[in-house]
Amino acid sequence: MVICFLTDFGLQDDFVGTCHGVIARIAPEARVIDVTHGIPPTAVLQGALVLSSTLPYMPAGVHLAVVDPGVGGSRRPLALQDAEGRLFVGPDNGLLLPAAERAGIVEACELANPAYALESISRTFHGRDLFAPAAAHLANGVPLAELGPPLDPDALVHLDLPVPAFRDDRIDATILYEDSYGNMSVAINRGNAASMLHASPGQRLVIRMLGPAVSVR
Amino acid sequence: MVICFLTDFGLQDDFVGTCHGVIARIAPEARVIDVTHGIPPTAVLQGALVLSSTLPYMPAGVHLAVVDPGVGGSRRPLALQDAEGRLFVGPDNGLLLPAAERAGIVEACELANPAYALESISRTFHGRDLFAPAAAHLANGVPLAELGPPLDPDALVHLDLPVPAFRDDRIDATILYEDSYGNMSVAINRGNAASMLHASPGQRLVIRMLGPAVSVR
Amino acid sequence: MVICFLTDFGLQDDFVGTCHGVIARIAPEARVIDVTHGIPPTAVLQGALVLSSTLPYMPAGVHLAVVDPGVGGSRRPLALQDAEGRLFVGPDNGLLLPAAERAGIVEACELANPAYALESISRTFHGRDLFAPAAAHLANGVPLAELGPPLDPDALVHLDLPVPAFRDDRIDATILYEDSYGNMSVAINRGNAASMLHASPGQRLVIRMLGPAVSVR
Repeated sequence: MVICFLTDFGLQDDFVGTCHGVIARIAPEARVIDVTHGIPPTAVLQGALVLSSTLPYMPAGVHLAVVDPGVGGSRRPLALQDAEGRLFVGPDNGLLLPAAERAGIVEACELANPAYALESISRTFHGRDLFAPAAAHLANGVPLAELGPPLDPDALVHLDLPVPAFRDDRIDATILYEDSYGNMSVAINRGNAASMLHASPGQRLVIRMLGPAVSVR
Repeated sequence: MVICFLTDFGLQDDFVGTCHGVIARIAPEARVIDVTHGIPPTAVLQGALVLSSTLPYMPAGVHLAVVDPGVGGSRRPLALQDAEGRLFVGPDNGLLLPAAERAGIVEACELANPAYALESISRTFHGRDLFAPAAAHLANGVPLAELGPPLDPDALVHLDLPVPAFRDDRIDATILYEDSYGNMSVAINRGNAASMLHASPGQRLVIRMLGPAVSVR
Repeated sequence: MVICFLTDFGLQDDFVGTCHGVIARIAPEARVIDVTHGIPPTAVLQGALVLSSTLPYMPAGVHLAVVDPGVGGSRRPLALQDAEGRLFVGPDNGLLLPAAERAGIVEACELANPAYALESISRTFHGRDLFAPAAAHLANGVPLAELGPPLDPDALVHLDLPVPAFRDDRIDATILYEDSYGNMSVAINRGNAASMLHASPGQRLVIRMLGPAVSVR
C-alpha cells in the first residue's frame, strides 16, 4: 500500500528521512510518496488545504500528515477512514479534515494503543514515534479500530476555514480571502496562485476587479 | 520501468509530489528517480545540459523533464525515443534534445491523445496534467505512436547551445563560454564546476590561463 | 536490500539524483532511503552524529554516507561491517565510526577493487563514481572482502568527539558542549534541539541552570 506523506519538516534536517526509516522497518513493502515537506512551519491551515487539494492526484492509501504545533500538549493523535477507504493519520488540530471530509469520514479513532507506536515516545517528535508507525501498521493491513478507542467525527477539532471561498468547486477559480493570520490572501482553487502569478514573497500584486466579485470575504 | 524526473519545480511546493502521485495512480509499478528539481526556474538551457550530462548515469527508461516557461502558450508537448530505446517526455523548447540526440532520435510525436492525459488539463500545470501521465503510460508499455501524431525530429525546437565547448567529449574538461544570458560562464564537462571550485553566487573567480585556450568562445 | 543514504550534497544540484541513478543501474532491486542530504557542507562531525543518531530508526542494510572534504586527496575510501550485519560505505575521515561502533566493527576494507567502481573515477565526485557503486554492489550481496584489502578497525581515522556528552545514553537529555568549531552548542541526545527549542540561526538562547550540571564541558 502507498503512504502519502506531507509535513512542515522541511528537507534540511533528518526528520523526513527518519520517518521513512521507521516506516520501512515496520512496513517494508509500503511505498512512500512525499507530497511535500515544504508546508511553512506550524501552518496548519495551509497544510490542510494542500493535503485536500492534492488528494485527488494521489493513489488511495494511507495519508500521513504532520503539521503539529501542539505536539507534547493535549491535542489527540488521530486516525480516520473516509467513505472511499482512504486512511488518514495525524494530529487532531484540523489538519486532516478538509481532505478526509471530501468523501466523508466513516470512522475515527485516537492513537492510543502502544502496540502500534515506537517503544519510547518522545515529547517532541510524534511524527517519528507515533504517526509514522501508525501509518505503517495501517499500510500493513491493521484495522483502524485496533489503533485505539473510537472518536465521534463531529467532535474532532475543525479549522476556521474560509468556507465560501474554498467550497467553491470551480477548478482554477481565483479566490481572495482573509487567511488565519489576518492577511488578505490570493489563492487558486486546486491550483497554485504563486506559480501562476509568478509571485514571490514581498512582491506587490495589483488586483483589478474585472467583474462582480463573487467570493470575497 | 524507471521514470527519471527532472524539473525546475523546486521542493518547497507540492508540484513534484503531485506528479509522483499522478504517476503512481497510472503506473503503480513504475519507480521514479528524482534527478533534480533544482534547475533554476525557466532555465531551459541549464535543464537541457543537466539532463544530458546525467543521462549516462541513469537507468534506461522514461526521462521526464519539465522546464517550461512556454506552458499555456503554443509550444508543443513532446515524446521522443532514441536509438537505445530511451524515452523522453517534455516540452518542445529544446530541453530534451541534447540528451535525446546523444544516441540519436528515432521517433518523435506530439502529445495530443487525450486518452493519455488527465481528464482536465489546466493552463499552467502541464507537468501534472499532461507530461507525468504520458510518462506513466509509456512506462506501462504504451507505444509512443499511441500518444499523438508523429513529428519530424528535424523540425523540433533546438537550443542555441555553446556547441564547440560542450561537444568536447573529454570528461572533466573545464570550459569557459558565454551563456544564453550573455554571462561568461565556467563549466566542467559532465561535472560540476561550482562544486569543484567551491564557488557560490556572488563569489569572485580568478582564471589563470596556464596553457593555450582551446575552447573559449 | 535497503540503502540508507546521507550526504552534505543538498538537493539543489543533481548530485543526489545522479547517485540514485548509479545505484539503480547496478542494483535495480535495492531501495534507497534518503536519511538527509542537508548536512552542512564538509561538516563531518555533524554528519557522523546524525548518521549515528538516526541509525536505530533505519532498517538494517547498507548505510552510505558521504561528507568528504578530503575527496581527491589521500584519505581512504572505506567499507565496514558491524556486529549486527549492517554495512557502511564512505570516506575514512571518521564519518562512519560513531554509527558503526554502536554495535562494534567486525570487518573493514579499503575500496580498491576497480570492478566495483565506475569505469572512470573523477577526482571530485567519489559519491557517484566510487561510494554509490560500492554500496549498490554490497546491496547485491557482494561480500565485503571482495571490495578491497582488509583494514585494521583500530587504524581508522577517528573524530575528536565530545565524548562525555554524547556517550550519555539518556534519550532526550539536553547537552551543552563545545563543538569542533569552538562554539558552545546545545544538543538533545537522539533528538533535535533546534526543533524542540524553536531555534533558528542568529537567535538568542537563554540557558537557565535548574540543577547541577552533569555533562557540560
